[in-house]
Amino acid sequence: MLLLMATAFSQSVADYDLWLSYQKISDTELVNKYRAQTNDIAFMGNSETIIVAKEELRLGLGNMLGNSSVIMNADPNSADLIVGTKDQLHTTIQNRLAKDLEQVGEEGFVIKALVQKGKNALVLTANTDIAILYGVFRLLELMGQHQSLDKINLVDAPKIDLRMLNHWDNLDRTVERGYAGASIWNWQKLPEYIDQRYIDYARANASIGINAVSLTNVNANALILTPMYLEKVQALANVFRPYGIKVYLTARFSAPIEIGGLDTADPLDQNVQQWWDKKAAEIYGLIPDFGGFLVKANSEGQPGPQNYDRNHVDGANMMAKALQPHDGNVIWRAFVYSEHDADDRAKQAYSEFVPYDGQFMDNVLVQTKNGAIDFQPREPFHPMFGAMPKTSQIIEFQITQEYLGFSTHLVFLPKLFEEVLDSDTYRKGKGSTVAKAIDGSLYDKKMTGMVGVANIGSDLNWTGHPFAQANWYGFGRLAWNPYLDAETIADEWLRLTYSNENAFVNPMKELLIDSREAVVNYMNPLGLHHIFDTGHHYGPGPWVSELGRPEWNPTYYHNADVNGIGFDRTTKGSNAVAQYAEPLRLLWNDPKTTPEKYLLWFHHLPWDYVLEDGNTLWDGIALKYQEGVNQVAEMISTWKKMKPYVSEEQHREVKMLLNIQLKEAKWWRDACLLYFQTFSNKDLPKGVEKPTQSLDYFKSLKFPFAPGIRPQWD
Amino acid sequence: MLLLMATAFSQSVADYDLWLSYQKISDTELVNKYRAQTNDIAFMGNSETIIVAKEELRLGLGNMLGNSSVIMNADPNSADLIVGTKDQLHTTIQNRLAKDLEQVGEEGFVIKALVQKGKNALVLTANTDIAILYGVFRLLELMGQHQSLDKINLVDAPKIDLRMLNHWDNLDRTVERGYAGASIWNWQKLPEYIDQRYIDYARANASIGINAVSLTNVNANALILTPMYLEKVQALANVFRPYGIKVYLTARFSAPIEIGGLDTADPLDQNVQQWWDKKAAEIYGLIPDFGGFLVKANSEGQPGPQNYDRNHVDGANMMAKALQPHDGNVIWRAFVYSEHDADDRAKQAYSEFVPYDGQFMDNVLVQTKNGAIDFQPREPFHPMFGAMPKTSQIIEFQITQEYLGFSTHLVFLPKLFEEVLDSDTYRKGKGSTVAKAIDGSLYDKKMTGMVGVANIGSDLNWTGHPFAQANWYGFGRLAWNPYLDAETIADEWLRLTYSNENAFVNPMKELLIDSREAVVNYMNPLGLHHIFDTGHHYGPGPWVSELGRPEWNPTYYHNADVNGIGFDRTTKGSNAVAQYAEPLRLLWNDPKTTPEKYLLWFHHLPWDYVLEDGNTLWDGIALKYQEGVNQVAEMISTWKKMKPYVSEEQHREVKMLLNIQLKEAKWWRDACLLYFQTFSNKDLPKGVEKPTQSLDYFKSLKFPFAPGIRPQWD
Repeated sequence: MLLLMATAFSQSVADYDLWLSYQKISDTELVNKYRAQTNDIAFMGNSETIIVAKEELRLGLGNMLGNSSVIMNADPNSADLIVGTKDQLHTTIQNRLAKDLEQVGEEGFVIKALVQKGKNALVLTANTDIAILYGVFRLLELMGQHQSLDKINLVDAPKIDLRMLNHWDNLDRTVERGYAGASIWNWQKLPEYIDQRYIDYARANASIGINAVSLTNVNANALILTPMYLEKVQALANVFRPYGIKVYLTARFSAPIEIGGLDTADPLDQNVQQWWDKKAAEIYGLIPDFGGFLVKANSEGQPGPQNYDRNHVDGANMMAKALQPHDGNVIWRAFVYSEHDADDRAKQAYSEFVPYDGQFMDNVLVQTKNGAIDFQPREPFHPMFGAMPKTSQIIEFQITQEYLGFSTHLVFLPKLFEEVLDSDTYRKGKGSTVAKAIDGSLYDKKMTGMVGVANIGSDLNWTGHPFAQANWYGFGRLAWNPYLDAETIADEWLRLTYSNENAFVNPMKELLIDSREAVVNYMNPLGLHHIFDTGHHYGPGPWVSELGRPEWNPTYYHNADVNGIGFDRTTKGSNAVAQYAEPLRLLWNDPKTTPEKYLLWFHHLPWDYVLEDGNTLWDGIALKYQEGVNQVAEMISTWKKMKPYVSEEQHREVKMLLNIQLKEAKWWRDACLLYFQTFSNKDLPKGVEKPTQSLDYFKSLKFPFAPGIRPQWD
Repeated sequence: MLLLMATAFSQSVADYDLWLSYQKISDTELVNKYRAQTNDIAFMGNSETIIVAKEELRLGLGNMLGNSSVIMNADPNSADLIVGTKDQLHTTIQNRLAKDLEQVGEEGFVIKALVQKGKNALVLTANTDIAILYGVFRLLELMGQHQSLDKINLVDAPKIDLRMLNHWDNLDRTVERGYAGASIWNWQKLPEYIDQRYIDYARANASIGINAVSLTNVNANALILTPMYLEKVQALANVFRPYGIKVYLTARFSAPIEIGGLDTADPLDQNVQQWWDKKAAEIYGLIPDFGGFLVKANSEGQPGPQNYDRNHVDGANMMAKALQPHDGNVIWRAFVYSEHDADDRAKQAYSEFVPYDGQFMDNVLVQTKNGAIDFQPREPFHPMFGAMPKTSQIIEFQITQEYLGFSTHLVFLPKLFEEVLDSDTYRKGKGSTVAKAIDGSLYDKKMTGMVGVANIGSDLNWTGHPFAQANWYGFGRLAWNPYLDAETIADEWLRLTYSNENAFVNPMKELLIDSREAVVNYMNPLGLHHIFDTGHHYGPGPWVSELGRPEWNPTYYHNADVNGIGFDRTTKGSNAVAQYAEPLRLLWNDPKTTPEKYLLWFHHLPWDYVLEDGNTLWDGIALKYQEGVNQVAEMISTWKKMKPYVSEEQHREVKMLLNIQLKEAKWWRDACLLYFQTFSNKDLPKGVEKPTQSLDYFKSLKFPFAPGIRPQWD
């Protein structure tokens, strides 16, 4: 029986702190060292951004070092730590750091240990105030990871311009694909009431370099563009400004009709154009640094230019023109597939968008999901990456775990993001990775960007699962530097969030890294995809076959029959392989040269097809499902050993969640194997546990109130 | 411009602690005294309830006294504090306290300072473990209020049996009339994941003696009664059990059809009866101490026995029979009014239910709202109170502020509750107060009860407005003792939540006490009622007149025309006065002997009717609206002075909310007066500020996403 204890409330809310808990360092030698290095601080400047940077530094040093009397206005000539933009530094230091500062641009920073007039000093400098704030956060993070500052020589700048979160938050505070409670945007109380969460949200984002947020669902409601709501948006923008975060809004294409009183939203109609011009001017009047619009048009029922026989270029450029005078951007999503197009859904975005390359205005960013279907546990990279050299193409990842176990499965997504970013598109020969296509090093781009669909809600721990915080953190780190490896990110996050003990960090790092392959194994092994139950995408539904549009049905994707399983995207099938550059096109056209992780993505193969390890396909699928379950069991056993390093509440919380994950991993295994078995007509191989329920039982499960479903008003 | 600071995260979540923050006491003399009185504790027993009581005591003493080494297993002969049920006490003490213990029943406790063998000792005792827990909370609360324990002689027991919260929480985590974020019940993660909030919720409830909760909306979904959900409910019941809290569920009357596969829900149908019998047995198999069902039947579209030409007695007794073998209760709501009944809505519940007196089974509790309309800022007490001597009638208050400014208005509701409880029904002559009708002292009752519709959600501070926590607290205290006065409750809550400084407590107590009259003044003065905007009830809508049912329209209630304003409920009107006992019937039939606070509730009066103070009715209404606005302005000025006594974040938070309240108070004043002025055709009297917007502007305001609206699936 569960034994429940009264605990200090403060314990209950420990998870609220995210990676900014600034835990007290117990190593007194290290504390003394850090104290000596940060005791007298000359922190120059007094902008809003500098004020919050100072406060953050005070908070961080105070908590980590127990130093409640940090001096911020020391004499720069004798200070231990000198913080200031280039111009504020003494000329000698300016000269010494000039070369570094040339490299870091508007958002990068330098942290360097110098000897000044015979005295050791740390210098934190940059070209702008916001970069100083980024540097302060980084300095605190290094200390939080107990790294030595003695010889620090860190010159760092973001490799990507736009580092953005997309919130799919509705005006009624529901969150589409949200698994962490209600939206953090309390529209009812805005603009007057500024929830402390908004400030903490901005701090967390700034600490990892996120510099843009879109507040509202891409399945948009035009009301957000009315004066009543714009006043609320303005209040949020005011909160975010000191933290370097620009606000974007989702613009419903039909807004001129819905809130403008026009009878058309035709992008070539002058009244429509003028309406958007005026609307943009109105918004910039309230929010001078407004980011721009994010648009989902002619996608899954959303209105768009095609409603008027215009195309995406017409639509995007019309909005771009309205925003251009104000330096605003249009982010136009490429996630399109049509109910009227019988072609493989995986091909449609490429087919439609690639011909537009070069036609979009400079301030249009084309936002493309990491894969061609929809945020699956694993997909090959989207073939559009690298295929639109003249377009500012940005990548969209999903941080919220729509297809990855909601907020009860521990899955470390930087491993997934890294796999995509490291994928070689071969568009300009070997080494043309997605990261290079994105960060502008493959082709010169007007603007580069990486977007993550947020996993943030009102839950005390922000993300529903405390380990899902790592995915927010990791997304930010990769948006700053898409070449960071997932292990580094895991290491950083674990130390900042929980503990610097190696006995904790090392096994947990392994757990995090393995967690992504585990979920692929127990949900969608060997290239299977989109076999989720319908609508809510909670749990398995490979049998679902009767939805209105063929490409909404799992059966469309796995295509299992007595002859085998998989989607034939070869030249003999949908020929989706043709959208990739050589040699991928050639390699992926043949199952023998296709990486097995993508096997059933590209091929329909017989049940007795022989895999690399000599197993038949049927046995291989079954063993992968079992392996996924085993991996979760291992995660549980690792976590058990971590008890000494985390609080009792934290340990209990994650233990409960891992138990749900194990239960659901078994559910996936049993339901999928029982269903596929009706086609393979083969026994489960040795080592695969027998299902404890019937296929009919699994089919009977219904979850009408699974979270994250699109609300009915939409 | 708003200057935002990085603050310690722990500050952000301070409001999460509720009145259980156990703030460190700074008066060292008092700390030493308390330490001496609680240092060696003999805490006897080891049930789950006793374990949580010990942990709570350890936590409270630890925080308040900085005493981290509290001993719990001291020798009872030498302990400073002896805690144990009667049987566990030494016979000498048993005998000394026997008389007290006879008085306190199953849930009361005794805290007494004794001299035992020449040594001072505190004894905390009771007849049951749960009463020990209540005693521990009370002891901690007394210390939190810095009260002396030297001569304590406290014998206290609840005067009401059932002290219950009703959550109007939906299975999709929306909350009908909820203004504090999503439901705290995370159905998706239950039963495996026990959110720490559930435990803290149980602690908070137990600390004020709440002993029952209904988890789900009275506009019910039958799915809650299916095995999948019952398993989740069981998990919550397991959490709540040590804290003495029983779980109830709302039972949709048509559940036998919706989830039982029957084609009728006729209460006289044997299959239906058997279905409920089995369902009850199934639930009690999972939750042996399940409380029972809460039912809203044939009310606002909900199904009920009348769908089958049966009556409320048929319906309630059918369920009562199913629950009786398990000692469960049916709580049957009397909130009924029919679209087919043209009679005054205020009369319908009384007309329908009073004739049933004596016909309900013993385990049926008839739950009646405090007033005859619907949780208005002010209503005369419901005429049913005292009018059903043979029925266990329980009272329903609304803690969530549906008609009281949502979670942005500071309104101290114990003042409203107190007014109702102190109202004299005269049913058994003078002094027959509602409190006496409710607590069983007027008529002998099988069971007594007080219910509050919860104002709790997932917001960090639980209730949206930190001062709304006082309404949860105050409801619990009044359910324990309906004769407590609102000032005492305000005093307790302020000390426990914020500060014991008199310079804080005294002005803030006055602010709390006055806050309720302020909201009456700026929303519904002089007996006006139900003039809220439709559906969401956010803001004024006195002009709304075209809703489908007449009694849904504000115009039905205020009835303003060129001749005057008000609802004529006298013998010349709807004769609702006839439902009250003499002398009320007589007094309230005449405007001159009707208290002015109820004037327009009972009378339609000309605009130039002369009030007690000599003003005309028109001037009086206008001046009341202005007075309400002035009162909010005063609240703001009081709060400004409170800065030294609360944290910066707490001060800022309440200041922002008070500013919203002021803005909305003015909105109410201006919108209502402009509208009523179209009938009165009179100028605003001196002292009333001119509206800054037109009536058309106010009418044009639309709030499609105001929180708390009933979801569309219902």
